Amino acid sequence: MNKIKLSTLKSFCEEALVKSGVSKQNAQMVADTLITTDTFGVMTHGTKNLNQYIQKMNAGGLDAKAEPVVEVQGPAFAIINGNKAIGMVSACKAMKLAIEKAKQTGIAYVGVKNSCHFGAAGYYANLAAKEGMIGLAMSNADPVIAVPGGRSKAIGTNPFSFAAPTADGKSVFLDIALSNVAALKVIMAQEKNQAIPDTWLVDEEGIPTNDAFKFPKNASLQPMGAHKGYGLAVLVELLSSVMTGAGILSQVTSWNLDLSSTNNAGHAFIAIDISQMMPKDVFNSRMTQMIDELKNGPKAKGAEKILLPGEMEWAKREQALESGELVLTDAMAASLQQLAASTGLALELY
Amino acid sequence: MNKIKLSTLKSFCEEALVKSGVSKQNAQMVADTLITTDTFGVMTHGTKNLNQYIQKMNAGGLDAKAEPVVEVQGPAFAIINGNKAIGMVSACKAMKLAIEKAKQTGIAYVGVKNSCHFGAAGYYANLAAKEGMIGLAMSNADPVIAVPGGRSKAIGTNPFSFAAPTADGKSVFLDIALSNVAALKVIMAQEKNQAIPDTWLVDEEGIPTNDAFKFPKNASLQPMGAHKGYGLAVLVELLSSVMTGAGILSQVTSWNLDLSSTNNAGHAFIAIDISQMMPKDVFNSRMTQMIDELKNGPKAKGAEKILLPGEMEWAKREQALESGELVLTDAMAASLQQLAASTGLALELY
Repeated sequence: MNKIKLSTLKSFCEEALVKSGVSKQNAQMVADTLITTDTFGVMTHGTKNLNQYIQKMNAGGLDAKAEPVVEVQGPAFAIINGNKAIGMVSACKAMKLAIEKAKQTGIAYVGVKNSCHFGAAGYYANLAAKEGMIGLAMSNADPVIAVPGGRSKAIGTNPFSFAAPTADGKSVFLDIALSNVAALKVIMAQEKNQAIPDTWLVDEEGIPTNDAFKFPKNASLQPMGAHKGYGLAVLVELLSSVMTGAGILSQVTSWNLDLSSTNNAGHAFIAIDISQMMPKDVFNSRMTQMIDELKNGPKAKGAEKILLPGEMEWAKREQALESGELVLTDAMAASLQQLAASTGLALELY
Repeated sequence: MNKIKLSTLKSFCEEALVKSGVSKQNAQMVADTLITTDTFGVMTHGTKNLNQYIQKMNAGGLDAKAEPVVEVQGPAFAIINGNKAIGMVSACKAMKLAIEKAKQTGIAYVGVKNSCHFGAAGYYANLAAKEGMIGLAMSNADPVIAVPGGRSKAIGTNPFSFAAPTADGKSVFLDIALSNVAALKVIMAQEKNQAIPDTWLVDEEGIPTNDAFKFPKNASLQPMGAHKGYGLAVLVELLSSVMTGAGILSQVTSWNLDLSSTNNAGHAFIAIDISQMMPKDVFNSRMTQMIDELKNGPKAKGAEKILLPGEMEWAKREQALESGELVLTDAMAASLQQLAASTGLALELY
């Protein structure tokens, strides 16, 4: 009982959202975001979280009926007020607007305020790639990283993503948190009772620690590459929050530990319309040149192949689409079953 | 004899460039780029390299008289052919064009092909910040990083920079290479005969090594944060090279080890005009809010303060501007003296 048909998952997610007050159109948008993320193998950021998003609607931390509104705009930019809508709705609308504007001008930036956890940044970057554009997507988040010289949770993992189209209709894409490792890896080390490298956490004094159990109460994540990840997290904070009117740093709450509070996160999306700068076939062949050179380089001892950013994700997605089903993690299955119970909807696993 | 007046350095650099065939206007642009970089304390990327840039002109790898030309443009983008001009000339013109276009549209992207090492990316990002904009600047470079699963030099350190204006007229800015550490740190470990952490290099089999002496012949740099830095380096390659027509990966030569060859590097610049999205005083106060919260966070044991990205660089620049002089590193002094000898120009150190 750990498999589900993609078609079943789609209708289940949409119905659960509609039952919670979300419009049919927005429900379809959210379901596609979360299920696509699952098919890429990023099970931590897909439908597993839907139960909590809906709990957050019920608790008042999200507004199921809200529609994001453009507050300021110009030829190549816009700022959207998410109005406490579920993050995926604001994020999809923002990236789609960035794509439309980039078609006119070559590049566009759309920022979002008054939003919430938007799932996997890579989904939105890939919306642009699907339109033949380079897409960037990022978000701030509640602080969990200690910055160099500090001992407390000062800045979010601030996910950053890009995607660029390839000749085969897929994309090269990256979707990363700016911590050195994801909090989930620390939790897994706790579950396995393992010591961790001293590059993952700092303790309550700001000193690197090998003790996974200090997290989250008495430890914070380290930024990727020390001052480098810190600086990049500041860039994401600038574009997602300082520029948009979203919550800054500690003004963003934990979206899932604090269900009744407004989350206050902000996002930023950039789309670049390649075809205005270079004929599409020239870009495709240059992209293929880069890909071939990277993939055909000499392999490290013991390595079978060199992967492109996003290659593993696309392989998982192809497999899911071919089989028409997903193999659920235990956490996903449990979360979906809870959602079925609370909404009274049927859920067919097998 | 390790100090120089900033005014002396300025006229010396300008005269050396003009003597080599560069126009007065371009010579001033290059000198300002390099000297500003020195005042930020980034002595590896400033006037120390001028001797080699000029040697490269003499060897035919750069064209002293070239002027960059816009080849394609639209409302919010342009692609510039650098025509083998010294990198700083193409880079300054490109960022200035991005700023002009962003004034019309909100955001703009300018790519550059047929260029060369542009010095410190942060200088160009700061050109945008000086205009009240957020600036991004990046460049590809000759391959020196091994990608995950590989054993050879596959992709450049691909520097990435951003800058954002602050209320005090300075900026928050970051300028990083996407390797875990700079090659220079490996060279310094060689000079001190020190073992290095196994996160700096991989050896000729693609295995992490503690032996600094393997570099550069039998070792490659590791990307920052493994697959994360690899992915970000691919993003820089896309925006600087695949999109612009510049050399891709191995098509970029070493600018300083191969003086007679065309370098083929490409760059990318993005400017975002904040004031169209948010009143300047609102942005300033939100920026101050972020800065204050980061800087006033509880300090790690033993840490005196939490630095902002770019704070150390601005402190060094203020000191240099106040004193009107620079303290040269040995490498800088030697390089400037060589340039004085080869050009026949006087150089007053004290």
